[in-house]
Amino acid sequence: MEKKVNISARERNDLIAAENREILSNNGIFTVNIIGSPGCGKTSILEYTANHFDEKFAVIVGDVKTALDSDRIIQSGHSSAYAIETGGGCHLSAQMIRQKIAEIDLKAIDYLFIENVGNLVCPSTYDLGENLKIAVLSIPEGDEKVRKYPALFLRARVALINKIDLLEYLDYDIERVKADCLVHNPKVKIFETSVKTGAGIDDWLAYLREQRKA
Amino acid sequence: MEKKVNISARERNDLIAAENREILSNNGIFTVNIIGSPGCGKTSILEYTANHFDEKFAVIVGDVKTALDSDRIIQSGHSSAYAIETGGGCHLSAQMIRQKIAEIDLKAIDYLFIENVGNLVCPSTYDLGENLKIAVLSIPEGDEKVRKYPALFLRARVALINKIDLLEYLDYDIERVKADCLVHNPKVKIFETSVKTGAGIDDWLAYLREQRKA
Repeated sequence: MEKKVNISARERNDLIAAENREILSNNGIFTVNIIGSPGCGKTSILEYTANHFDEKFAVIVGDVKTALDSDRIIQSGHSSAYAIETGGGCHLSAQMIRQKIAEIDLKAIDYLFIENVGNLVCPSTYDLGENLKIAVLSIPEGDEKVRKYPALFLRARVALINKIDLLEYLDYDIERVKADCLVHNPKVKIFETSVKTGAGIDDWLAYLREQRKA
Repeated sequence: MEKKVNISARERNDLIAAENREILSNNGIFTVNIIGSPGCGKTSILEYTANHFDEKFAVIVGDVKTALDSDRIIQSGHSSAYAIETGGGCHLSAQMIRQKIAEIDLKAIDYLFIENVGNLVCPSTYDLGENLKIAVLSIPEGDEKVRKYPALFLRARVALINKIDLLEYLDYDIERVKADCLVHNPKVKIFETSVKTGAGIDDWLAYLREQRKA
């Protein structure tokens, strides 16, 4: 008879996340969990990556509703994009990722990008089995987001400050944002990026290549 | 002996929300629940309101961490701003509002503005006891937010499309956004606003005055 063990939903998530990490690592895959507000540019960064990253990768895109974002990535020239529609859920879970990676040919890729649901709060504390959790900030959101949403910035090893091309039009203290990131994580790596101008993206992609080798 | 009744957290929220609505209405107060992404301009709209709305009101501001936003409203010339720090929580609850309105002199105000936690997902379905739930969209977030986060737009009676001053710098199909709002709620009232230029804000404040009289 099967022995039943009562564990919390969070503990179950973390157990499955650890298994995901093992499955992915055993296949030589470096996995990135991308977290940021709605409209901060997560999908645009992945579109740009689809066109400029000369590595084999797949993308899993989480959204409350619609597969608009994975469609965008496929249209930008990359066929391996998989949509997860959470049906109202505010974050991706390790279980959702487990189901999706069963559909992916893991031998065919070296990187897996997971675009989480657009939300600065709930996705921050759910391990999906990634190697790298990154935070995407956006200039038009204002320069106090790191202070107001600390959970993500305590855990993210990388912060992209995106839409840097809009800096000239907006009152945004980028030095304050960088200082706030460093308070939460003194080892955080920060990139200033723009998909419109391409600024910073090559450095970010070079960093990704280094991280997989490390 | 007290009789215990098992109800879900959601049912408890909704019961308390109904009581909040009764308490506030009995005091002649019109209550607005303001929901939008981090950085869409909720606090800026309330700062502007503090300076331009010639009515008696209080503001409750929810944030995961810090009282930065309520401080901004107080600094903009309005003393009745109350902070709720959710300590990681991703939305305000009716219970949090109940505790806070106990601190407010309800006889002294005609309007209560509640700025929810910056999040397009979780706050959408929690009734706080408001008369009016409004969605704040922001031009730099991109024009597909209504489709991707439908729960809010099914419930919001008003949508503010904010930061309209940035429209000229960005590729944003405002007619598509308005059409998407109308699909979710054919009676939605839409305002195009900018706190920088003041566009649309007077119409929005006039609408608020009408709604309280109605």
